[in-house]
Amino acid sequence: MQGKMWGGRFAKKINPDFEQFSKSIDYDYILARYDVFNSLIHVSALKNNAVLTAQEEKRITQALWRLFITIEKGRWKYNGSSEDIHTNIQNQIEEKIGKLGLKLHSLRSRNDQIAFDQQCYCCVQAEKIINSLNKIKKRLLALGKKYKNSSLIGYTHTRRAQVVAASDYFACFASMFDRDCQRIKGYRRRLSIEIGAGALAGNTISRISYRRAIDKWFIQVKQYIPELKKPTVSKNYLIQVSERDFVIEFLQNLALVQMHISRLAEDLIMHSTKEFNYFDLPEDFCTGSSLRPHKKNPDFLELLRGCTGEVYGSSFSLLTLLKSLPLTYNRDMQLDKKSLFPVVNTVYQELKMLEVFLPELRLNSAGIESELKDESIYATEIAEFLVNKGVPFKQAHQVVGKLIRYSEERKQKIIDLSQETLSEFHKDLKKQQIKKIVNHKKAVKAKQK
Amino acid sequence: MQGKMWGGRFAKKINPDFEQFSKSIDYDYILARYDVFNSLIHVSALKNNAVLTAQEEKRITQALWRLFITIEKGRWKYNGSSEDIHTNIQNQIEEKIGKLGLKLHSLRSRNDQIAFDQQCYCCVQAEKIINSLNKIKKRLLALGKKYKNSSLIGYTHTRRAQVVAASDYFACFASMFDRDCQRIKGYRRRLSIEIGAGALAGNTISRISYRRAIDKWFIQVKQYIPELKKPTVSKNYLIQVSERDFVIEFLQNLALVQMHISRLAEDLIMHSTKEFNYFDLPEDFCTGSSLRPHKKNPDFLELLRGCTGEVYGSSFSLLTLLKSLPLTYNRDMQLDKKSLFPVVNTVYQELKMLEVFLPELRLNSAGIESELKDESIYATEIAEFLVNKGVPFKQAHQVVGKLIRYSEERKQKIIDLSQETLSEFHKDLKKQQIKKIVNHKKAVKAKQK
Amino acid sequence: MQGKMWGGRFAKKINPDFEQFSKSIDYDYILARYDVFNSLIHVSALKNNAVLTAQEEKRITQALWRLFITIEKGRWKYNGSSEDIHTNIQNQIEEKIGKLGLKLHSLRSRNDQIAFDQQCYCCVQAEKIINSLNKIKKRLLALGKKYKNSSLIGYTHTRRAQVVAASDYFACFASMFDRDCQRIKGYRRRLSIEIGAGALAGNTISRISYRRAIDKWFIQVKQYIPELKKPTVSKNYLIQVSERDFVIEFLQNLALVQMHISRLAEDLIMHSTKEFNYFDLPEDFCTGSSLRPHKKNPDFLELLRGCTGEVYGSSFSLLTLLKSLPLTYNRDMQLDKKSLFPVVNTVYQELKMLEVFLPELRLNSAGIESELKDESIYATEIAEFLVNKGVPFKQAHQVVGKLIRYSEERKQKIIDLSQETLSEFHKDLKKQQIKKIVNHKKAVKAKQK
Amino acid sequence: MQGKMWGGRFAKKINPDFEQFSKSIDYDYILARYDVFNSLIHVSALKNNAVLTAQEEKRITQALWRLFITIEKGRWKYNGSSEDIHTNIQNQIEEKIGKLGLKLHSLRSRNDQIAFDQQCYCCVQAEKIINSLNKIKKRLLALGKKYKNSSLIGYTHTRRAQVVAASDYFACFASMFDRDCQRIKGYRRRLSIEIGAGALAGNTISRISYRRAIDKWFIQVKQYIPELKKPTVSKNYLIQVSERDFVIEFLQNLALVQMHISRLAEDLIMHSTKEFNYFDLPEDFCTGSSLRPHKKNPDFLELLRGCTGEVYGSSFSLLTLLKSLPLTYNRDMQLDKKSLFPVVNTVYQELKMLEVFLPELRLNSAGIESELKDESIYATEIAEFLVNKGVPFKQAHQVVGKLIRYSEERKQKIIDLSQETLSEFHKDLKKQQIKKIVNHKKAVKAKQK
Repeated sequence: MQGKMWGGRFAKKINPDFEQFSKSIDYDYILARYDVFNSLIHVSALKNNAVLTAQEEKRITQALWRLFITIEKGRWKYNGSSEDIHTNIQNQIEEKIGKLGLKLHSLRSRNDQIAFDQQCYCCVQAEKIINSLNKIKKRLLALGKKYKNSSLIGYTHTRRAQVVAASDYFACFASMFDRDCQRIKGYRRRLSIEIGAGALAGNTISRISYRRAIDKWFIQVKQYIPELKKPTVSKNYLIQVSERDFVIEFLQNLALVQMHISRLAEDLIMHSTKEFNYFDLPEDFCTGSSLRPHKKNPDFLELLRGCTGEVYGSSFSLLTLLKSLPLTYNRDMQLDKKSLFPVVNTVYQELKMLEVFLPELRLNSAGIESELKDESIYATEIAEFLVNKGVPFKQAHQVVGKLIRYSEERKQKIIDLSQETLSEFHKDLKKQQIKKIVNHKKAVKAKQK
Repeated sequence: MQGKMWGGRFAKKINPDFEQFSKSIDYDYILARYDVFNSLIHVSALKNNAVLTAQEEKRITQALWRLFITIEKGRWKYNGSSEDIHTNIQNQIEEKIGKLGLKLHSLRSRNDQIAFDQQCYCCVQAEKIINSLNKIKKRLLALGKKYKNSSLIGYTHTRRAQVVAASDYFACFASMFDRDCQRIKGYRRRLSIEIGAGALAGNTISRISYRRAIDKWFIQVKQYIPELKKPTVSKNYLIQVSERDFVIEFLQNLALVQMHISRLAEDLIMHSTKEFNYFDLPEDFCTGSSLRPHKKNPDFLELLRGCTGEVYGSSFSLLTLLKSLPLTYNRDMQLDKKSLFPVVNTVYQELKMLEVFLPELRLNSAGIESELKDESIYATEIAEFLVNKGVPFKQAHQVVGKLIRYSEERKQKIIDLSQETLSEFHKDLKKQQIKKIVNHKKAVKAKQK
Repeated sequence: MQGKMWGGRFAKKINPDFEQFSKSIDYDYILARYDVFNSLIHVSALKNNAVLTAQEEKRITQALWRLFITIEKGRWKYNGSSEDIHTNIQNQIEEKIGKLGLKLHSLRSRNDQIAFDQQCYCCVQAEKIINSLNKIKKRLLALGKKYKNSSLIGYTHTRRAQVVAASDYFACFASMFDRDCQRIKGYRRRLSIEIGAGALAGNTISRISYRRAIDKWFIQVKQYIPELKKPTVSKNYLIQVSERDFVIEFLQNLALVQMHISRLAEDLIMHSTKEFNYFDLPEDFCTGSSLRPHKKNPDFLELLRGCTGEVYGSSFSLLTLLKSLPLTYNRDMQLDKKSLFPVVNTVYQELKMLEVFLPELRLNSAGIESELKDESIYATEIAEFLVNKGVPFKQAHQVVGKLIRYSEERKQKIIDLSQETLSEFHKDLKKQQIKKIVNHKKAVKAKQK
Repeated sequence: MQGKMWGGRFAKKINPDFEQFSKSIDYDYILARYDVFNSLIHVSALKNNAVLTAQEEKRITQALWRLFITIEKGRWKYNGSSEDIHTNIQNQIEEKIGKLGLKLHSLRSRNDQIAFDQQCYCCVQAEKIINSLNKIKKRLLALGKKYKNSSLIGYTHTRRAQVVAASDYFACFASMFDRDCQRIKGYRRRLSIEIGAGALAGNTISRISYRRAIDKWFIQVKQYIPELKKPTVSKNYLIQVSERDFVIEFLQNLALVQMHISRLAEDLIMHSTKEFNYFDLPEDFCTGSSLRPHKKNPDFLELLRGCTGEVYGSSFSLLTLLKSLPLTYNRDMQLDKKSLFPVVNTVYQELKMLEVFLPELRLNSAGIESELKDESIYATEIAEFLVNKGVPFKQAHQVVGKLIRYSEERKQKIIDLSQETLSEFHKDLKKQQIKKIVNHKKAVKAKQK
């Protein structure tokens, strides 16, 4: 049990399978940068509180800072034989500066460190996702601008309903991602990064000692990690070591992002089939088939849609994990990272790829134009025309319903029906005006408020 | 198909089992007040847009307002043979004012109405839950004040760890509910109540017509429903009829509230056992057993904990429902209410009962006092004492670990060990000072920053 | 607290809101028939064990049997002021036969009763669902027979892939429901209905007393509830009152049924669009739109798909509920019924409607026939033709891939390409043979093993 | 795009981020052994069907068999630049035997291969888990035997209820795992491993060719993988490439195993606290704390409990993934493995550790013995004594309820109450008999049927 941060108490050696099972270094290593940041603050606070001398502080923080730089430069590797990231950093500092390193862990607890580290992680990743959502929103609005003169068939119940502006179609998805963006911004604003909770009961270091230490290190670290917020000193120690709602909320927010992604993916998959044929997918995001060489498969979109399972599952995993967990820290909580990290990574990757995919999306304008001649999609417009003539809507509705049925059964276009026939449905149905109504540009324009 | 809002098109009658299956009136009837509010605005907007005359507007809105008042006075009952709440209201108005009622549904769609109604519902319920969370927070802080001189044993890993202030214990739960409160406030702030999206493509009513209609009715309705926010005119129609993220987000927020409730419940269940015996539960929230008459069962807390299943499940249900649903409105979305309404109701009931339950909670101070003599819970304090003497923490940790082990094996109290024995563990361990450290008030005070 | 089955112990009255909250009668009333069955056995066992006299047994069981018949005839109503179904039945018997009724609850516990009742419920409902799944399977196979000469376009990645027999298409869904059927059969086989566990520790009634009582009543009750299995006497009392895995497993099985339903629904929704146009949906299972009269919306299928949320959520709710619940009975478990009953009901309704819906489904054979001329769906067949000429598959694949691309870019049919052009792609591509390959009947037949 | 199994069709290069994102080799590599098994059968079937010569078959299968042996000996490593396991194996065979290797992929599809591979995986892992569950059951029954003379306090509502035999306590958990075992056995029995479905439409290889090939290779492979079942030839191709219910069902079964594990963990965590003190946990499965040296934390049990999140989440991830997925294969399905593999691994590890942990568990018999003197846990027995005297149970219940309340308020033991006092509660309460009833051995024995 060389290098464990505990162990004084036990006579018997730990079971090796359990030891392996209980290790978290294989996933929590990505917290290294935040763990070192935490240690930098802690060491300076110890000195401010006269637990360490200025000389001791200097030697330890120098070693820590060098480590921080190594990590930021991507040149650091974790030691797979460590129990967790805190032990790994602790051992590395001891290796560098010898016995003095033993003072690093004075008056603190891993319960406090891990909460701090994860708060940093969530804060930084949230910012990155906010930025990417913003870009996607812009890409979608740009598509809307590009196709500002195009109309699309809008669907309800996966059935042709009415004509809509292509720009509104893209703006709809832009709005979805914008809502996600605002939601995550609110989350990040409320998220606080805290230090000083000890194992659960705080420690004897004063708030002012901590604050001065935070002031000292935050500016330096932020140069490397600009997405960070400034840490604060913990007020209620119990909640700091007990709580993981901030992890779940992040995952819940991502579940909504993912829900929106899945709807976008579904629409694009369906609308790019040979049957719908409204969209042309960028070839570099499709794949072929090993057996059927003619296929242009929307694999990218399918994988996006498929990720929904993983992302949804994770917030439920963590809700389950925290269900009826007694105060304060319990070892169960270690496993929250196994759900958090991969899902944040998945969603972030999806978004980064969407940033590239979206501008390459093409509208098959010719095909759409021809489908816009389908006059059943103007039924509402005809009914509203009658309404404006003073016909109660429910009646207008029935008139047009019968008209459509008549037209379908006889396979005759409404605009080709004689005035006589039209008048049998309703006296106000005028052939000339019907012709004007059955026009996608007019249909869209009439509702632009 | 008497009284359906559609049907002109079909030759065949609807299958009666399916008709029953597809009805939503048995649950969406609770939206009645919001649906009438929507109709009031809509009718005045129609008049502002010259679709209805001032006279027509007056007659329809008078009938609607009477209906609204009936609903608010709790004297309204839904008609179980209606398809949904919109049809119910529509039919009722037709009954009251005859043929003119047919004009009510002019230029609108249930797709738009239902979104508006649910946005109102979420807005109002969110406010109620915010208020209740605030009260619970105050109750918990009041408990902390009441027991401001008491200490408790703090647990990690369901094992005695260190002494904590009772007020911090209650404040921890208060903080949890406060976070929930802030989260829901942010949600409600972002939530907008929209009108004017039509089926998916908007309608020809102008924004200004709507705005004036909103101005007219909002103030009147708000006198009855003070938790409402002012509606706005829809800008992107597609998202208004397609989106239910605001329903899911509310349920996600409630899942976190429920997670916190389950943790409070678990702590209180465990800490009120004969074995822990720290808390005395209010008898009027406990039940007995039909077979074992001596039991005082924490049924209230168990039911709170048990509700976690229902509440967690609901946000998963709705995420599932919306997964890869193509734009725009799909009938699947009708079922979101079956998850939303009962869960909002459950959580609200839980909170209202907690408001009453919490002030009746008693700390078993005598029992706790005696347990605070367990000196293993001062191990950290002893170790920190050594650290302040300059001993590296990891070494201090090992010293105290061995000391505890020694004391346990010999069943001898540490404060009863001779100075000689103590010194064998570490030269700085002074009997007199150890005695001072093993004191719960001092332990708590030392860390109050 | 009139009529409670407990209460001797308490000085204070129960909180009225909590009392309402803790009642289960509004949902567990549907267990009435099983609860009376349990009481019939119990009373006769008490007599067999000499706790009751023969006369007492006779009077109580007569009253119980009358109640049972009333329930089976649909003439029984629950008393909403009862705490739960057990109390309701108990009180009703007391009303009928006076003080003697007080002996009914001798030596037993509601913990045991509720487990028995729910085991009966699951057993009966499982059998009903098995029967319906069998019918649906037959309906699907019948559709396959009806359209035995039709081919369909098979899709992978929602892209046209290869021709498949219509009968295989329907058989695929039949297989899905058959798997569900086998799974639920296995579940029902393992499910045991047990009596005699007391609150958690058993009681003093002998196994033989119970067995004889079961023999007496099972045959009579089975005449009314043929789906029942014979109860047995509990061996391990602790598990009988602690366990609800049989509830979760049932819901998990239904989640898979629902998953299959959702896939069937999705396929039919998409394939009945104007764009795909392969299927014609029965009009009596569609609805129209209040605004757009031309719509024939697949509401039935959408609602089936939408039910997925509710059904999936329920097994998650119950897994959550039982997560880390200590032995044995806990009040949390009462809430399992709130998830179980509505979901069983939903799935059963869906299946019963599918039994009627499926035979009405029509294949749009003319439309399909014309789409089967799309020669890209024979790409695999062309490639396999080359393979049979000795060309390595990966090479054949590339040849046909290029051929398709060439044909698409020039908008020329492959069968119209000259032999010269074909030979440029591969020497073995013979115009005459290609023409034979591009034939849907041949394509299907070639693979029928 | 060197080494891709598709690609003839496309002009543009795949996006490198998407390429990375769509790769599955990093997780599906563990299917290597099954993928080679599939290829062995396929190649022999091609030869049986005269697509390959005997000589070609020999050369390819020799290379495949060598690869199989390498994998089984643990000396194989996957090539991280491959798209998936099928491509990896294909490329490796091409490297070994050159151009002939190109014939390996004749007349087949990865859609078929991956289904076969995963069916093998589930079959093998199910068998391993069945075996481990059997062992755990035996360990628990052995504990019951070891402590066959001990009683325990049984709990309902986390409150002391009645005395139970220690052997029944362990048998309860044994039953839980036995149910899981039977459930998974049923699952494995129904699971079939199929080959021959092509991409979705089958291929031209005859059933008899496949059957002979299966006969040839199954016996050889089974020597290395004894948990395998014999594959069969696919009958309905569409379902073989579309279906993943067998993956979900396995995860659902594991969710129930995990639910049971979480309940065992919770009971042991609580019952090994200083407060309950019934169990002594094996030290080699506990850990200490970095700050509080006296802690013996039940980390193993906490981690078991914590795994519940991951395991529950996974079946929901896959249910989500398959929700309303149209027929047949969709790329989404690739991601099922990301949920399946780690969860199977987690549960298997948990079970293997439990096999070691359980025999080391110790009952703190002395402590328990003293708690068994708490006479409130004999309340039921006293009430049942009255019932056997002819007192209606509800009345007996009330008598004992008052008796307990009286005893608690006066802090006097029931067995110390005078006969006079007892008689005031009920005339049949005899001091001598009460003394006999309040005895844990008698209490347990009285109910052993």
